[in-house]
Amino acid sequence: MQNLTFSPEPGTPLYRQLYSMLLGEIRAAGLAPGEKLPSRRALAAHLGLSLNTVDAAYQMLAAEGYIQARARSGFYVCSGGLAGLVPQPEREPAGAESPPQPRWAYDFSTGGMDVSLFPLRTWERVAREVMRTGAGLLNYGDARGDECLRRAIARYLHEYRGVHADAARIVVGAGSETLLAMAALLLPQGAAGVEDPGYGQTAQVLRNAGVPVRPVAVDAQGLSVSGLRRSGCRSVCVTPSHQFPTGVSMPVSRRAELLQWARDTRGIIVEDDYDSEFRFDGRPLPALQGLDGEGRVIYIGTFSRSLAPSVRVAYMVLPPRLVPQYRSRLAGYASTVSRLEQHTLSRFMEQGHFARYINRARGVYRGRRDALVQALAAGLGTAAVPLCVHTGLHMPVRVENGMTGPQLAAAAAAQEVRVHALGEYRMQGGGGEPVVVLGYGSMGAEDIGPACARLSRAWGGQKS
Amino acid sequence: MQNLTFSPEPGTPLYRQLYSMLLGEIRAAGLAPGEKLPSRRALAAHLGLSLNTVDAAYQMLAAEGYIQARARSGFYVCSGGLAGLVPQPEREPAGAESPPQPRWAYDFSTGGMDVSLFPLRTWERVAREVMRTGAGLLNYGDARGDECLRRAIARYLHEYRGVHADAARIVVGAGSETLLAMAALLLPQGAAGVEDPGYGQTAQVLRNAGVPVRPVAVDAQGLSVSGLRRSGCRSVCVTPSHQFPTGVSMPVSRRAELLQWARDTRGIIVEDDYDSEFRFDGRPLPALQGLDGEGRVIYIGTFSRSLAPSVRVAYMVLPPRLVPQYRSRLAGYASTVSRLEQHTLSRFMEQGHFARYINRARGVYRGRRDALVQALAAGLGTAAVPLCVHTGLHMPVRVENGMTGPQLAAAAAAQEVRVHALGEYRMQGGGGEPVVVLGYGSMGAEDIGPACARLSRAWGGQKS
Repeated sequence: MQNLTFSPEPGTPLYRQLYSMLLGEIRAAGLAPGEKLPSRRALAAHLGLSLNTVDAAYQMLAAEGYIQARARSGFYVCSGGLAGLVPQPEREPAGAESPPQPRWAYDFSTGGMDVSLFPLRTWERVAREVMRTGAGLLNYGDARGDECLRRAIARYLHEYRGVHADAARIVVGAGSETLLAMAALLLPQGAAGVEDPGYGQTAQVLRNAGVPVRPVAVDAQGLSVSGLRRSGCRSVCVTPSHQFPTGVSMPVSRRAELLQWARDTRGIIVEDDYDSEFRFDGRPLPALQGLDGEGRVIYIGTFSRSLAPSVRVAYMVLPPRLVPQYRSRLAGYASTVSRLEQHTLSRFMEQGHFARYINRARGVYRGRRDALVQALAAGLGTAAVPLCVHTGLHMPVRVENGMTGPQLAAAAAAQEVRVHALGEYRMQGGGGEPVVVLGYGSMGAEDIGPACARLSRAWGGQKS
Repeated sequence: MQNLTFSPEPGTPLYRQLYSMLLGEIRAAGLAPGEKLPSRRALAAHLGLSLNTVDAAYQMLAAEGYIQARARSGFYVCSGGLAGLVPQPEREPAGAESPPQPRWAYDFSTGGMDVSLFPLRTWERVAREVMRTGAGLLNYGDARGDECLRRAIARYLHEYRGVHADAARIVVGAGSETLLAMAALLLPQGAAGVEDPGYGQTAQVLRNAGVPVRPVAVDAQGLSVSGLRRSGCRSVCVTPSHQFPTGVSMPVSRRAELLQWARDTRGIIVEDDYDSEFRFDGRPLPALQGLDGEGRVIYIGTFSRSLAPSVRVAYMVLPPRLVPQYRSRLAGYASTVSRLEQHTLSRFMEQGHFARYINRARGVYRGRRDALVQALAAGLGTAAVPLCVHTGLHMPVRVENGMTGPQLAAAAAAQEVRVHALGEYRMQGGGGEPVVVLGYGSMGAEDIGPACARLSRAWGGQKS
C-alpha cells in the first residue's frame, strides 16, 4: 500500500479516479492476482479520502469482476482473464495514457450530446462552399475571430439571449476553457469566487492562470450573493441560466443582487451561459449580461454545448472597460479557430441552419427529458424526485431510499449504469446528500427506459 | 501632448505602434488638421522612447501624407481628405478595433506564407472523406488530440526531425501559443530565459502564464549558454533550427552545451522548431530534442508555419518527467482542435500529401530566396549582406550605407515597402544596428525584383 499514491484531478469524481488508479495497478500487476487489497478504512486513511470514496471504488471494481469480496476478510484481486478483456492501447506507456475506462451499459454523464442531431450534410455543404472561395482564408485573420462570425454571433446573442453584444468586443476562441483562461487575465487582482457545487474545470482553469479560487455556496436560487460578499472576492464565475450541476436558473431578484455586488465592489462577473439554448418550459430568462448597465460582466458561450462537442468554437463578450487590457495582454495572440471553420459556422448561422437546428434539438431533448421523468416515476415512484427540469441536458434527482449519494452512484455502477453523485462536484464539506445528476444529452430515447429500470433495481425501487 | 499616452505591446515594433497611435489621434481629430506635432525630441522624452523610434513613426506618417515637415519648424497635420481614404470599419468603436493598417506596396513582414501553394482541392477532398465517415467525430475526443493524428505526427517527427516522439506524449493544440501557455505551467519554478532579440509573443505568453521572463543574448551561434547560466533561469525557450529573427541555426557544439546546462541545473528547454521544414541548403540538423538523453526538452512545432497560418494545429512533445504534471494540471482541458480537422490533417499526412506539399513549397521558397539574394546584390551590391540564408522564410540583411536599422525601415516605408529593423525585436539595449529582416514567405516571385528596386532607391544603392 505504501506504493499507492494518488494525485486527484479536479473535474473527475474522486472515487472514479481511485477506481482508475487501482485498475491500473491491477493491470500492471502492481496488485497481483490473489493479492489482498488494503482495507477500505486503511486505504482511506492512507490516501486522505473518505470511506465513501474508497467504498465506491471497491464496489465498482467488484461489480466489474476485477476484485472480489471474501466474507469477513476483505477484497482480493481476481485471477483470470477479466483484466485482459479491456483492449490495451499499443505502444503507449501506461504512465501517459488515459486510465482505462470501464464499459457502461448506460451512461448518464453530463456534457454529452446526441451528435446524430447535428446536420452534418448541411455543414459539409457549407464547408465546401467556403473552401471553394479560394486560398484567401488560409492566411492569418483577426485575432478576435473574423468579423463575419463575430457579427453573426452578435446578432444571435442580441436576438436570443438579450446580450448587449457589439461585434468589436466579441472574442472567438477554441472552446470556453480557452476563453476563460483569457478572461482570467482581465479580472481584478485577488481571488475569484466559483460555485460550490460547480464545474471543477472552471476552478482549474482559473488556478492555472494564477487566480486564487474560493468556493461560494449555491442555494435554491443559485450562487449565494451573501456568501460571495463574505468571501471577499473581486470576481466570480457563475452559470445563471442553468447552474452546474444543481440545474437552478437564477431568478431575476438574485441576478439584480449579484449585479449590485459587482457595482459595490467594482467586481467582475464571468457569466457562463452554457446550456441556455435548451430551455424547455416557459420563457428563457435573458442573460445576466443584458441586465448589466455598468459593464461588469464578461459573457461566455459555446457552440460545443449547443452544436456538437467537437465544434471547438466559443465566444466571449467583453465589457468596454476591459478592452484596453485585452488589447495590451492578449491581442497579440493568433486566433485559435481555423478561419475555414469560422466562415463555415458564420454562413451556417446566416443561412438559418443554426436556429433551425436548435429548435429541432430542443424538441428532441424535451422529449427525452419527459421520458426520463416518466421512467423514474414508473420505476421508483415518489422515492425519486427530479429537482430542476426546465433547462439543459441534465437534471439532479433526489433519491429517498436511505442511501448516500456515493452509495447511489456505486449501486448504479454495479448495474453498469454510470451516474454522478451531486456531492462529487462539491469543493468542500457535505457530499453525502442523496442526490444524483442524470445527464441525458447523449442517451438515446430508446435507452432511457432500460437504463431507468436498472436504476430502479439498483436503488431498490418496486415495480408496482 | 499631455494627452498622448502610449502602452506598448510586445510583438509589434515600437515605431509602428507609435505610428498607429498618432494616426488614430489624427483620424479622431485629437490632432487637428494644421496642428503642429510635438517635436521629435520632446515626444521621445514624454513617452520614454528613443529618438529613432519617433523619427521612424513621423517619417511613415509623412510618407503617407498624414503629416508634413516644414523646414526649420517641425511636423504639421495635413488637412484634406487623406485620412478618409482608409476605409473606416462600420459600427465598431475605435477603442476596440485594431489600429488602421497602412497600405504597403510590398511587405517584407515575417510570418507570412504563400497560401496559394496550399493544396486546397486535396484538403477539401480529404475533409469531405472525413465528414462522410459520420457523426462519431462530433463528440469529445482525447484531450491530447486523437490518436491517429498524434501517431502521424510522431512518425513525421521521427523521420524528418529526429525527434523521439511517442504518440502518448504528444499534445495537439490550436497553435503554438496555446501549447506554450500549457508548457509554461510545467516549467520549474523561477524565471524563464527568452532569446534577445527574439519573438516578442513568446515572452508575452510566458508572462501571461505568470512566468517571469529574462532576456538572454543571442550571438552568432544562437542563444548564449554562458548568458543563460548567468541569468539564473531554470528554463529557457529557444529556436535552434532558425533563430528568430537572426536566422542562426544553432551548431551541434552549442546544442550540446545547452543540453549540458539543462542537466547541470535540472532545467527545462522549450524548443520551438518553427520553420525547420524549409531548409534549403545542406542537410537539416535534427531537432535539439533528438539529442537530449535526459528528457529535459519540450518540443513544439506547428502546421501554421508549414501548411498555412489558418491551419490552427500545433503539437508539443512532452518529456516523460513532465507527464504527471501535465495530467494533474492540464489533462482535464478539452482539446482545442476540431476532430474533423484533426482527422483531415491525419489523413492528409498518411496519404503523403503533407510530405509532397513540403517538398514542393521548399523548392518554391528556395527559388524566392535565390531571387531575393540576387535582386539585393543587383540593386545594392556589396552594401547589402544577407546574413543567414539557408533556412526558413526570412533573412536578416546588413546594409552598409551609414543608416541605422530604424532609419533603414523608415526609408523603406517612405517607398511603401514594409521591412522590420532587427533592433525592433530586442528587449534591451542596442537597436541601432544596420540590419533589417526581410520576410519573403508571402511575397510573390514577380514582386521580389520591384520590391528590391524600391529598397535600392530607399537605401541609396547605385544601379551599376
